[in-house]
Amino acid sequence: MAKGFRQKIRQKNTENSGFGDNASGRFINKDGLPNVTRKGVNIFNRFSWYHTMLDLSTFQFLSYLVIAYVLVNLFFAFIYYLIGVEHLTGIDKSDPVNEFIDVFFFSSQTFTTVGYGRIAPVGFMASLVATFEAFLGLLTFAIATGLFYGRFSRPRAYLKFSDIAVISPFKGGSALMFRLAPFKNNALTDADVIVSAAIEVIENSVPKSNFYTLKTQLNKINTLALNWTVVHKIDEESPFYGFSEEDFKNTDIEIIVHLRAFDEVFSNTVVQRCSYISKEIIYGAKFTPMYYPDKENLSTVLDLDKINDYQKADLPMMMEEK
Amino acid sequence: MAKGFRQKIRQKNTENSGFGDNASGRFINKDGLPNVTRKGVNIFNRFSWYHTMLDLSTFQFLSYLVIAYVLVNLFFAFIYYLIGVEHLTGIDKSDPVNEFIDVFFFSSQTFTTVGYGRIAPVGFMASLVATFEAFLGLLTFAIATGLFYGRFSRPRAYLKFSDIAVISPFKGGSALMFRLAPFKNNALTDADVIVSAAIEVIENSVPKSNFYTLKTQLNKINTLALNWTVVHKIDEESPFYGFSEEDFKNTDIEIIVHLRAFDEVFSNTVVQRCSYISKEIIYGAKFTPMYYPDKENLSTVLDLDKINDYQKADLPMMMEEK
Amino acid sequence: MAKGFRQKIRQKNTENSGFGDNASGRFINKDGLPNVTRKGVNIFNRFSWYHTMLDLSTFQFLSYLVIAYVLVNLFFAFIYYLIGVEHLTGIDKSDPVNEFIDVFFFSSQTFTTVGYGRIAPVGFMASLVATFEAFLGLLTFAIATGLFYGRFSRPRAYLKFSDIAVISPFKGGSALMFRLAPFKNNALTDADVIVSAAIEVIENSVPKSNFYTLKTQLNKINTLALNWTVVHKIDEESPFYGFSEEDFKNTDIEIIVHLRAFDEVFSNTVVQRCSYISKEIIYGAKFTPMYYPDKENLSTVLDLDKINDYQKADLPMMMEEK
Amino acid sequence: MAKGFRQKIRQKNTENSGFGDNASGRFINKDGLPNVTRKGVNIFNRFSWYHTMLDLSTFQFLSYLVIAYVLVNLFFAFIYYLIGVEHLTGIDKSDPVNEFIDVFFFSSQTFTTVGYGRIAPVGFMASLVATFEAFLGLLTFAIATGLFYGRFSRPRAYLKFSDIAVISPFKGGSALMFRLAPFKNNALTDADVIVSAAIEVIENSVPKSNFYTLKTQLNKINTLALNWTVVHKIDEESPFYGFSEEDFKNTDIEIIVHLRAFDEVFSNTVVQRCSYISKEIIYGAKFTPMYYPDKENLSTVLDLDKINDYQKADLPMMMEEK
Repeated sequence: MAKGFRQKIRQKNTENSGFGDNASGRFINKDGLPNVTRKGVNIFNRFSWYHTMLDLSTFQFLSYLVIAYVLVNLFFAFIYYLIGVEHLTGIDKSDPVNEFIDVFFFSSQTFTTVGYGRIAPVGFMASLVATFEAFLGLLTFAIATGLFYGRFSRPRAYLKFSDIAVISPFKGGSALMFRLAPFKNNALTDADVIVSAAIEVIENSVPKSNFYTLKTQLNKINTLALNWTVVHKIDEESPFYGFSEEDFKNTDIEIIVHLRAFDEVFSNTVVQRCSYISKEIIYGAKFTPMYYPDKENLSTVLDLDKINDYQKADLPMMMEEK
Repeated sequence: MAKGFRQKIRQKNTENSGFGDNASGRFINKDGLPNVTRKGVNIFNRFSWYHTMLDLSTFQFLSYLVIAYVLVNLFFAFIYYLIGVEHLTGIDKSDPVNEFIDVFFFSSQTFTTVGYGRIAPVGFMASLVATFEAFLGLLTFAIATGLFYGRFSRPRAYLKFSDIAVISPFKGGSALMFRLAPFKNNALTDADVIVSAAIEVIENSVPKSNFYTLKTQLNKINTLALNWTVVHKIDEESPFYGFSEEDFKNTDIEIIVHLRAFDEVFSNTVVQRCSYISKEIIYGAKFTPMYYPDKENLSTVLDLDKINDYQKADLPMMMEEK
Repeated sequence: MAKGFRQKIRQKNTENSGFGDNASGRFINKDGLPNVTRKGVNIFNRFSWYHTMLDLSTFQFLSYLVIAYVLVNLFFAFIYYLIGVEHLTGIDKSDPVNEFIDVFFFSSQTFTTVGYGRIAPVGFMASLVATFEAFLGLLTFAIATGLFYGRFSRPRAYLKFSDIAVISPFKGGSALMFRLAPFKNNALTDADVIVSAAIEVIENSVPKSNFYTLKTQLNKINTLALNWTVVHKIDEESPFYGFSEEDFKNTDIEIIVHLRAFDEVFSNTVVQRCSYISKEIIYGAKFTPMYYPDKENLSTVLDLDKINDYQKADLPMMMEEK
Repeated sequence: MAKGFRQKIRQKNTENSGFGDNASGRFINKDGLPNVTRKGVNIFNRFSWYHTMLDLSTFQFLSYLVIAYVLVNLFFAFIYYLIGVEHLTGIDKSDPVNEFIDVFFFSSQTFTTVGYGRIAPVGFMASLVATFEAFLGLLTFAIATGLFYGRFSRPRAYLKFSDIAVISPFKGGSALMFRLAPFKNNALTDADVIVSAAIEVIENSVPKSNFYTLKTQLNKINTLALNWTVVHKIDEESPFYGFSEEDFKNTDIEIIVHLRAFDEVFSNTVVQRCSYISKEIIYGAKFTPMYYPDKENLSTVLDLDKINDYQKADLPMMMEEK
C-alpha cells in the first residue's frame, strides 16, 4: 500500500476496464482469464460444457472420453444382463462372470457399430436396447467429432510472453518493456496491443484500484514473425512517472496486456492476454536479443528459450515530483 | 397514449431503426428477436431449417432425432416386409408380428451400420434396399454431426440482462439504468452497447413510433468479467428529459439494447439483444451491488442471482418544460 | 447507346469498381455473381471443388452423392469379381449375374461398414481390397460430413430483392428506389448497402462504362426485420440528374447493389448482391406497402409476395440541362 | 549493396514491419510465409499439428492417412497375435503367415467397424483389445472428419500474382506495377492491398534494412472479378524516386504485398501475401491486357495464362538527385 501515490499520478484514469474498483486480488490470472468467481444461477446453466471441453488439456479430454466409453458399456451391459443372456446368441454361459464379460463386449460392439454378430440380440427387449444403443453410439461419435474439430480448429494466438517485465533505460529516460513471440508454425499479421495498468491508490483512506491506459511506442505490427518488444516510455504522461524502485515494489501494480492479431491459417482474429504484477517487474534491466542470422545468412533464427533473458542496466536518475 | 409528448422531446429521432413507424406491438421480444410475422413466399423457402434446428432446445432437438430414427426404421421395416421376409435370413417366422419386429430391428441394424448379420439380406430387392438404407444412415449421421457441431459451436454471448430497468438518482439528476452480466465460463472482451428508445407520439392525431438513440456514460468495456451497469443520463439531450413518473407509465416506451462483444473461446463476435417496455421500467430505484471480494480477499465473487436486486431511491425534483 | 451523355453527367466516376471499362455484357448477373469467364490455368486448379459443391442445389448435391456411391460400388464389385468369387463366403454361385449382384452388395456392405458377414472375404486379395474399401468408405463419409456441414452452415443473407427498381416521386423531386426484405427466420442486424451505377458513355467515339457511386438516403439499418426501401434521390449530385424516361430506356445502365449485414445465428457477416439493368427500371412508379399490423395489433405482418407491387405515380417535371 | 543510398531516400521509413533491421535473407518467401526459423521450446510445443495438417498437399495428407491406417493395423495385429489366435474364431490356422494375415484383416475390420464377424473375438483379452480398437477407430475417423473439413473449409484467397513486377511508364513519369487475379470460382469483394518495400541501406557502414510504405493509385477494389494491376507511382514521395536501372539491380530491394479481401462463399476475410526481390523487378516494361470481350460480346473472358505477359516500354528520363 503506497500512501499518497494518488498525488503522484497525473494521468486520468479510465473507467471502462470492466473491473470494479473494489475487486480483490489479481485482476487477470497469468493464464489470461479474469480472476472472478461466479455464483448463483443454476449450476447447469452457469457452465458452457462446450467451453469446458475446449479448455481441457488433450490428455484430460481423451481420458474423459475413455471413461465415458467404459461407463456407457457397463451401463448397457447391466441392462442386457437384466433382460437375460438368453436373449443374446453366442454368449459364453459357463458362469455369471463370463456372461457379464460377453454382455459387456456385446455392448461395446453395438455402441461402436462394429457388430461382429458372434453375439447378436434375438428377443424383442434385447433388440430394442441394442437398437437404441447403436443410435446413441452414433450420436456420441457425432458429438465427439464436433468436439475434436472444435478443439483443434479453435483459433489461438500461440504467443509466448516473457515471464517478466523490465524497467529499462530508453532514449535518455526509462521505459517499461515486456516481449512476446509466436512459438508455433502459425502466421500472425496485423497484431495490435493494448496495455493498461491497475494501480492501487488510497482514496479517502480506502484502498482502490485505478486503471490507466499505457501508451506504447508502437501499437501495431504488420507481420508478427520475430519477437516483439512492447515499450511503454515512462514520461510525463505515464502513470509511473516519478516512480522509484521502491514505489514499484511497494505499490500494488498490475500491467494488463491484451493482444489481438489475425491468424492466416484460421483466417480469424486471435487474442491473448497476459498480466504482470509488481513482483514480476524487474527494475533496472534490459532484454538481450533473441534472434540472429543463421549460418548461411539466408534466414533468421528466433530462439524462443531466450525470451526471458535480460541483463542489468543502470537507469538514469529521475527527478521525483518536480 | 401520451398526447402532446411530441413537444416535450427535443432530440432528433433517427430513421434507420429498421422498424416502420406504424409497426404494431412490441418491437423486440424479450428473447431478442424482432416481433414480426412473415407471410408469402413458399413455406419451404421461408424457413431455414438449419436456423430452426439451431434454435431448438437440446431436449426438443434430441426428441426430434429419436422420432426421426423410429419413423425411418418403421418405413424401411414396412418396405422389407412388402418385399418378403423370405429375402432375409434369420427371421423369426413364428407369426407376422414377430416377423415385423425382426424386420424392424434388421432395419435399425442396417441404418446404424451395426450389421450383426444374424439377420441379413439374401435376395436382390432386399439387398438393394439395405444398400440404400445403410447409405442413407451414414448420410443422416453426417448431417447429425453437422447439426451437433453447429449447435454447440454457435457463438452466443451468454449474458443475463436484468429483467427491469430503473430510473435512478445520478450525479445530481437522474438516469435510466439496467445491468447485465456474463453467466457462463466464457470470456468476453471489447463489449460495446447501443441503446435506443422507441417512443409513441401522436402526430397529426395518428399514433406513431419515433426512435431515439440514447447516449450512455460508457459504451465500451474492455473486459466483461463482472456485471456492467449501463447508464443513460437523463439530461437535456435525452428524449426522456422532463418525463414524470406518470409519463413513463402512460407512454408506450420501448428501450432496445443491442450488445456486441468478442468471445475469446469462439474467437468470434457475439451479439445479444434485449428490450424493456414501460411496465418493466421502475421509477425511483437503484440497483444494489452484486459482486464482492471473496473471504480470502484473493478473488471477486459475482452473484448472478442478485442481478434484479434494487432498493427504493428518491429522485431529485425535475423541472418539466422550462 | 446515348450519344453525348458524357456531358450530362457531372458526378465524378469512380475507378475502383474492379471492372474494366471495356468489359462486355452485364457486369453482375441477377444471381449476384460477376459476369466473367475465366480461361487458362489448369482446369483442375481453376475450380475450387469445395466452392462448387457448396453452390450446388440440394437435389444436385444428393444426386451426385448417390451416383458416386453406385459407381464406387460397381468399381469395387468389378475388382472382387476379377479376384474371384471363391474368395468370398456366402456368394450365390448359381450364375454369373447372381455372382456379380452378390459381389456388388458385398461391396456396398463394406463401403458403408455395415458388414453383415453373410458375405465375407476369405482370401488375401479380397480381404486386402475390402480393408481398403472400408477405409475409403469412412473417409468418404468424413468428407460428406464436412460437405453437409459446409453447405448448411454457410452464412447467407436470405434476402429477397424486388425484381424491379422504380423512379418515384420523392420530396418534390424524384428518386431511384428498390426494396429488399429478409425472407427466412434469420435475424439480420447492422445492415449497410453500397449502390453504384455503371453507365455507358461514348468517349472519343468508343463506348465505355463509367462507374458512379449513388448516394442513398439511409445506408445503414440497425435491425433488418421488415422490408427496406433503398432510396437514391436524383439531385444535382446524382449521375441521373436530368435523365428523361427515354434516357433511362436508351442508355446502358446497370445499378449494382452490394448489401452487407450481420447474421445473429451464424454470428457472421453475410453479403448479397443484386443488379438492375435499364429494362428492369420502371419510370414513374412507386412501391405499395408490404407490411401491416396483424389483427390483434400485437405484431407486424410482412407479406413477401408483395415485394414487387407498385402503382403508377407521376413524376415532377425536371429541367434537362440547365 | 548500394552505398550512399540512404541520402537518396527522403521518405521516412516505418518501424512496425515486424522484421528486425538485421534479419537475414529474403523477408517473405515466395509462398507468402516469413523467412524465419524458430528454435527453443519443446519441439512438440513448437508445432501446431493442426496447422501442419492443413498445410500439407492433398496427396501428402492422404498418404499419411493410408500409412497411419496400415501401421495401426500392423500394431493391433501384432497384439492379437501375441494374445493368441485361439481367441479369435474363423482364423485360417494353416501356417503362421496366414494366421498373421487373418489377424491383420480382423484388426482392419474392427478399426473401420465393418465387423463382418467371419473372424470374431471370443476370449477376454482379444475382446478387450477389439473393444478398444473399435473405439480408437471411431475417434480416428472423428479426427479425420475434422481435418477434412478444416482443410477444405479453410478460407483462402486463391489469387495468382504475376511472377514479376515491372517499372512502367505512367502519367509522364514511371510506376512500379504488379498484377494479380482470382483464378478459381470464388467471389472476392472489398479487396484492399498494402504494399511496402524493404531497402537495404548502409548506416554507419553496417548494412541495414529500412521499411517503407508504398502509396498505390488505388488501394481498394469493390469486386475482384477481373485482374487488378496495382500501381505505385514513383514520385517524390516514393523511396524509389531517382532510382536508375542499375540502382534497382544493385540494391537489395524487397517489395512486400499484403492483400486482404472478403470471400462470399466462406463469408470470411481471406489474406494472401507475395513478395518481389530485385531480380524479379523488370525495368522498362509494361503489362499487356489479359481480359477481352467474348465472341458474343455478352461476357468478359479473363485469360489467366497471360498474367506475366509484358512488353518493353521506354521510361521517361528521370533527373537523379535534384
